[in-house]
This record gives sequence, C-alpha cells and structure tokens, in this order.
Amino acid sequence: MEIVELATRLQAQLDPMTNLEILGVAPIDQAQESDITFLVNPKYAHKLQDCQAGAILVNEDFDAPAPCPLLRVKHPYLAFAQAIELFYPPTPLPTQIHPTAVIGQNVSVGEDVAIGAYVVIGDDVVIGHRVTIHPHCVIYRGASLGDDTLLHSHVVIREQVKLGNQVIIQNGVVIGADGYGFVTLPNGQHHKIPQVGTVVIEDQVEIQANTTIDRATLGETRLGKGTKVDNLVQIAHNCTVGQHSLLCGQVGLAGSTQVGNHVVLAGQVGAAGHLSIGDGTMAGAKTGINNSLPAGSRVSGYPAMDHKVWLRVVAELKQLPQLMKRLRKLENQLSQD
Amino acid sequence: MEIVELATRLQAQLDPMTNLEILGVAPIDQAQESDITFLVNPKYAHKLQDCQAGAILVNEDFDAPAPCPLLRVKHPYLAFAQAIELFYPPTPLPTQIHPTAVIGQNVSVGEDVAIGAYVVIGDDVVIGHRVTIHPHCVIYRGASLGDDTLLHSHVVIREQVKLGNQVIIQNGVVIGADGYGFVTLPNGQHHKIPQVGTVVIEDQVEIQANTTIDRATLGETRLGKGTKVDNLVQIAHNCTVGQHSLLCGQVGLAGSTQVGNHVVLAGQVGAAGHLSIGDGTMAGAKTGINNSLPAGSRVSGYPAMDHKVWLRVVAELKQLPQLMKRLRKLENQLSQD
Amino acid sequence: MEIVELATRLQAQLDPMTNLEILGVAPIDQAQESDITFLVNPKYAHKLQDCQAGAILVNEDFDAPAPCPLLRVKHPYLAFAQAIELFYPPTPLPTQIHPTAVIGQNVSVGEDVAIGAYVVIGDDVVIGHRVTIHPHCVIYRGASLGDDTLLHSHVVIREQVKLGNQVIIQNGVVIGADGYGFVTLPNGQHHKIPQVGTVVIEDQVEIQANTTIDRATLGETRLGKGTKVDNLVQIAHNCTVGQHSLLCGQVGLAGSTQVGNHVVLAGQVGAAGHLSIGDGTMAGAKTGINNSLPAGSRVSGYPAMDHKVWLRVVAELKQLPQLMKRLRKLENQLSQD
Repeated sequence: MEIVELATRLQAQLDPMTNLEILGVAPIDQAQESDITFLVNPKYAHKLQDCQAGAILVNEDFDAPAPCPLLRVKHPYLAFAQAIELFYPPTPLPTQIHPTAVIGQNVSVGEDVAIGAYVVIGDDVVIGHRVTIHPHCVIYRGASLGDDTLLHSHVVIREQVKLGNQVIIQNGVVIGADGYGFVTLPNGQHHKIPQVGTVVIEDQVEIQANTTIDRATLGETRLGKGTKVDNLVQIAHNCTVGQHSLLCGQVGLAGSTQVGNHVVLAGQVGAAGHLSIGDGTMAGAKTGINNSLPAGSRVSGYPAMDHKVWLRVVAELKQLPQLMKRLRKLENQLSQD
Repeated sequence: MEIVELATRLQAQLDPMTNLEILGVAPIDQAQESDITFLVNPKYAHKLQDCQAGAILVNEDFDAPAPCPLLRVKHPYLAFAQAIELFYPPTPLPTQIHPTAVIGQNVSVGEDVAIGAYVVIGDDVVIGHRVTIHPHCVIYRGASLGDDTLLHSHVVIREQVKLGNQVIIQNGVVIGADGYGFVTLPNGQHHKIPQVGTVVIEDQVEIQANTTIDRATLGETRLGKGTKVDNLVQIAHNCTVGQHSLLCGQVGLAGSTQVGNHVVLAGQVGAAGHLSIGDGTMAGAKTGINNSLPAGSRVSGYPAMDHKVWLRVVAELKQLPQLMKRLRKLENQLSQD
Repeated sequence: MEIVELATRLQAQLDPMTNLEILGVAPIDQAQESDITFLVNPKYAHKLQDCQAGAILVNEDFDAPAPCPLLRVKHPYLAFAQAIELFYPPTPLPTQIHPTAVIGQNVSVGEDVAIGAYVVIGDDVVIGHRVTIHPHCVIYRGASLGDDTLLHSHVVIREQVKLGNQVIIQNGVVIGADGYGFVTLPNGQHHKIPQVGTVVIEDQVEIQANTTIDRATLGETRLGKGTKVDNLVQIAHNCTVGQHSLLCGQVGLAGSTQVGNHVVLAGQVGAAGHLSIGDGTMAGAKTGINNSLPAGSRVSGYPAMDHKVWLRVVAELKQLPQLMKRLRKLENQLSQD
C-alpha cells in the first residue's frame, strides 16, 4: 500500500511527504524498508537510530530526530493495531454449514454464518448473523450466540448459556460447566447441588484458550461488556465481572465474587469467594485477595495489601535475618546493663 | 408443586400449614412468591424481612419471626439441593448410540447407554449401564467406565484408565495423559520415561472442567470415592487422593504425593512431590505445601505453616517497615548511652 | 525376556550371572520375582532388604548387599526408562487416514502417517513422515508438523504454527491461539490487536495436557529443542524458551519473556513480561519472577530472591510475632531507663 494511502486510512499526518510502498508491520528492531513500525514509549527512542523501517507511527507532538518518515497520529499504539488489521486480514471460514455438522431441532441460524466440520449444536439454539463456529465446537441445547460472534475450535457452550454480539472465544474454552457446589453431610460426604443457573457473556467480550467459566447454581454468572479474559482463567459459579476489565493468565475467582468495571487482575491472582472488588482496582501478579476492596484499590501480596505498603514490606523482607541478628544484639546489650 | 407435597418429598415440617403452589427455587434476595428459598447461616437472618419467597427452608429449631411459611428440616442446605433436583431435572441425552460414533473392536456396552455424536471409543473398552457420553469424547483402548457415569463433551479418557460408578466428568477434562517424567542425562537433555501406569477414579468422584490427571509411570494414580475436583486442577503421575476430599480450582499436586481422606485444598494450593498430606487436612488458598502434614493439619502460607501462626505472621508483616524504624531507633538510643 | 538378553540390551553387567525370566518393571516396593526394579538414590537403600524383585538396576560401583541379582549400569535411571520402553511398547494407531478425517486443499502428507477419526486439517498444511494424529485434533491452515511427531486427541494447532521433528503433544493442548494483546483507549475500552505472528516448536519438545502457547503478535513465540512443558502451563505471546528447559505444572509466562537453556521452573511459578531468565536458572515452586535473572540463578519466593536467602527469610518469618514482642519489651526497658 502506498504510504500516502496508509496515512489517510490511519488518519495520520505524513512527515515529510514521500512516496513509499508499505507491505507490512514489524517491531522496531526487526522492521525493513517495506514495513512500518511504531514508537509509543519514549524510553525506546534510542532504538530509532538503528531502525530500518520505511516509516514510524509516532505521537502527534513527537520531536526527536528520526531516520525515516513519520506518521503522526493521536494514538500510535491504536494505529499500530489498525495497521495490522489492514495488512493481515484474517482468512474467514467459508460461510456455509459444513455437511458434517450435527444440528438439533428448532435451531435458528442467522445470515452469512460459517459452521465448521463436526460442530454439534443442540436443540433450541439461536445463532445470530455472521457468526463463525470453527470445527469441533459443541453447543448444548438452548444456548444463544449474538451477531458477529466467533468461536474457535473445541469451544464448549453449555445449555442455556448466552453470548452477546462480537464475542470472541479462543480454543478449548468451556463456558457453563457445572459450578463446584456440594453440601457436605455430617458423615463427611459431599452431595452435589445441581447447577441450574447459566452464564451470560455480554458484547465484545473475548475469552482466551482453555479458560473455564462455570454456570451459576441458580441465576447467572456474568461477564460485562468489553471484558477480556486471558488463558487458563477460572471463573467460578455466580461470579460477575463488570465492563472493560482485564483478567490475565491463570487468574482464579472463587464463587459469587463480584468484580467491578475497568479492573485489572494480573497473572495468577486469586480472589476468595463472596467478595466485592471495586471499579478500577488493580491487583499485581499472584495477589491473593481475601477481602473486599473499594474502588480504585492498588494491591499486591497475599493477603492483598496496598501496593506501596507491599513494596516496602518485600524490600524489608530480605533483611529479616539481619533484623533478627540486630535484635539479638540489642537484647544482649540490655541484659548486660 | 403443592407445598404440602414438597414438604413430604423433602421430609420437612410445614409451619404453618398452608396451600401454595411452588414452581422453583431462588436465592433469598431474589425469590418470588412461587419460589422456595433457604436460610442456613444465622448471619443472613436479617435478609428475612425483605424476603418475598413463598416458603423458606430452615433448621428444625429455627425460631426467628418470618414473613412466610417455614419448611423445617434437619439439614436445610441439603434440602435446598434436593429441591433444585425436584424442580430442575436434567435433560438426558437420548439413550442411543449416535450413528456418527466410532466404536472399536471388542467394546462392551451396558444397557440404556447414551453415546453422543462423534464420540470415538477405542478397542477393548468396557462401558457400564446407564452411562452418558456427550459428543466429542475420546476414550482410548482398554479403558472402562462404571455404571451411571456421565462424561460431558470433549473429555479424554486415555488407555486403560478405570472410572468407577456414578462418576461425573465435566467438559475438557483429560484423564490419563502421560505424566511429566524424564531422565536428565549428563549432557542436560531429558530422556522421556514412558508412562505405562494408569489412573483409577473411584465411585462418585466428580472432576470439573479442563482439569488434568496424569497416568502413573508404573502402577496407578488414584482418586478415592466421593472426592470432588474443581476446574483446572493438575494432579501429577502416581498421586493418590483419598475419599471425600475437595480439591478446589487450580490446585496442583506434584508427582507421587499422597493426599488423605476428607482433605480440603483451597484454590491455587500447590503441593510438592512425594509428600503425605494427612486425613482431614485443610489448606488455605494459595498455600504452598512443601513438607508432609499430619492428619488434621490447618495450614496456610508458603511454605505452609499452622494457619493460626500464619494469621499472626501476616498481621505483623505489614508492620515490617515500622518495625525496622523502631529497631533503628533503639539502636541509636543504645549507641548514645 | 531372559535376564541375560535384557542385560545385553541395557548394556548392563549382570552380577552374579544367572538365568531368570523378566516380564516387567516395577517400583522397588512393588516388584515381584518376574520384575526388575531400580535403585538410584542411596537414601532408599534400606528398601533393598524387603525387595522381591528378580533383579535391580544399580550404579556400576554399587556395593551394598542385595537380595537378588544386580544389573550394573552407567545410568540406572536411564536404564529404568529403557527397560520400560522394552517391556511396554506403545500400541500405535494404524497408519491410515481415517475415512472421517476432513483434509483441506493442498495438504502434503508424508509416508506412514496415522490420522485418526474426525481429525480436521486445513488448507496448505504440511505433515511429515511417520506422524501420528489422534482423533479430534484440529490443524488450521498453513501449519506444519515435522517427522515422527505425535499429537494426542483434541490438540489444536492454529494457523501457520510450525512443529519440528519428534515433537509430542498431549491431549487438549492449544498451540497458537491469539495472544492477549489489546490497546486500552482513553475511554477505558480495550481494542484488540490482531495476533498475526506464529509459534515455532523445535525438535523433541514435549507439551503436556491442556497447556496453552499463544501465537506472537508479530514474529514468533518459540520453544527450543528438547524443552519439556508440563500440564496447564501458560506461555504468552512472543515468549521464547531455550533448549532443554523444564516448565512444570501450571507455570505462567507473561508476554515477551525470554527463558534460557536448561532452565527449570517448578510448579506454579509465574514470570512477568519482557524479562530475560538466564541459562540454567532454577526457580522453586510458586516463585514470582518480576525481574530479569542472570544465568545460573537459584531463586524462590515472591518477589523472587536468592534461594538461600529465601530459606533464611521464611525460617524467620514464623518468628515475626515473637520478634515483635521482643522488640516491644526492649522498647519498654529503654523507656524505663
């Protein structure tokens, strides 16, 4: 694509004006003359000097010297994502129902739907327009999928689960399996509580590979609009996650916990059950949240504490053996007095 | 269902006697007049005043004022589970072998079995009576499934694995994949040790979504009767878990560890290999168990310590920076003396 | 097998020379007269006295009394693995393409390949010689599999992913699903960055059940030759892992982290993104690595610290409440002076 056209598409200001064919997008240290790259973080500005890219997406007010033309934009990182969309369009599945798909009774299928080989769809399922279902997905009876939703292979959507529009589900995700609910009897045996609630996934949610989201005992487990869930995350029955939150890899939420909007839980964070985690909370990797948190919390550690306190605590922690020695010395001094 | 009939079925005492049609079960704060709900924990008694339910399952000796009829039972939480069973019976798969199922040589299939679309069953497999196998399960050669066992879609049962009666396996579970066993050679390469043992799952075990239970190197990995395993749990080769234990979400057991009966491992607990974890042990969330534990242990933290000690330690932990300051102050005082 | 033949095959010295039929391999405390067993670790030497085995694989210079013939070898643990290979050969899938496999356009298939039921292979896939693909695997377009590679059931190989020779993938593994890449906009919404890179898995890598390895945003995620990855591990986009490293169960690597050669990350270790973890590093279970580590590091704890320091810190940790009391006592003494 001519760089002038690319600038127009990305709403970028080309500086200086030039003619150049751009064929791809690459990281700043791998880009060749036919690639564009991007620079957002000023701390990587030193990489510019060796940069071989044809052009660089930068902020509007960027003013360092550069070895190649600049594409000035309001939001270089977003423009980078958009450039990838332009240069690497996905290869869609053909919009057909593969002859090997097994479709139940009373299934409603929208227009321009692609259903891959060996997909199994139960009775009373509703599938919106432009939905893509890759091979080997199983959709149990009564589930519904909104428009423009994409399921990669081996996804399981259990009975009655509802997915909104523009939802993306990566491979191996299980939505709506039974929650972990048992009554422990006086003799120590565990009696299963049937899990007859469901899961609701709102619009524009993405859920990544092999993550599990359990159906509610009664009522629903819910993920709010625009929330993104990474791989191997566990969301237990009756949890709710608000809008535009990020749950990173291997996070685990125990039952009935309520996570707010714009929350970020870093990798391997765990939250106990029946908690409320306020809007905008950020929890560092491996945090163990065992109490409810007000909006805007910044926490780390286990049990979760204020992130700044935690930084001081872990700095001192390594000094603990020294501290013991110093204490002993003081005790000796005082006992000699 | 008439409440009088419901009372009979749940072995409940209706107080006061009344006529009322009950159509469902709901949480105490969502129940409508046609629902029953339950109250076990006295700390939620305040919710009674706004409760709209038609009737409430309570303990036999419950004596607080209530806005609606009571159903007095010995075990309200169990009666709640039983009420869900009554009002929300599962929709079984049809008892047929789907024509797309691929069945190997010398497979024995019991009566009233349901085998879904695209199930693949290897040679010499034994399937008991009233077994349900949802679509896309793969059962390798020589495995056996006891009576009344239920496999949800995408379950893998590897070669020679034995499942008992009334076992429930949720979607995406892998039972009997190779254990992580390698001989590290002097040159630093890792030579695979063939994993030729198996896995035995005893009666009434439930294993939830995307959990993995590895086959033994030699001998067997075993889960005892009535044990319940949550989502995304990792049980390594040659582990044994006793009866009626609970392994919560994302727990990990390293190889050859022996877990007793009635053990509870909370979410994200990890146990090192070759340990013995005694009967009735309870480990708090994220505990790292690096030594064997006697029966009845209550542990938390990493490395695991007595739970009460841990509570005191983590309470002090936040004071560590203050403690350092106080120590420095004392040192200064003494050096001035 | 006659023990003399077994000795020859294992390059072992039989001491004393004897005639005996060996039929299997068993752990030292379960072996019967027709089994061989092995003893590597001298701390288990006391188990010899009750050992019923027909013969024992031991080190060349072993000199304790034994109740049965010895098979002296250079590397008893390796010989144990080789003995298992001899006595328990795997049952291969028949080398055929199952008639239910759905194969795309322009797929190249090598010689002696076994493709199981309901396998789905996209366009332009390359499959080497002697490859085995168990039922229900899905291989997206443009992927390639090297010679002698083995995929167990329900494995997903996404578009363009490259697997080397002699790679083993256990059930439910997802290689090449989209990385967790989003641009957070000023309004707090997250815009997906298309993940158009790939994953490269080098020769002799093994990846175990339900592990997920994400494709790169641009470029590649790579696992080096001979590396072994346990169950439920998460490897994020653009990570590289070197050669002959071990990633144990439930390990998580955040994006763009570089792990060296011969690294061992024990169970539930997490590493933050954009780190470099040097060759030969060993991290204890549950370590949280939040900074780059030089080659040869030995770390534990969170944040990761030198393993020996950590051992001292956690030993002192339990004393923290006592320490506080002692400090208070000193303060009181001094304030009374």
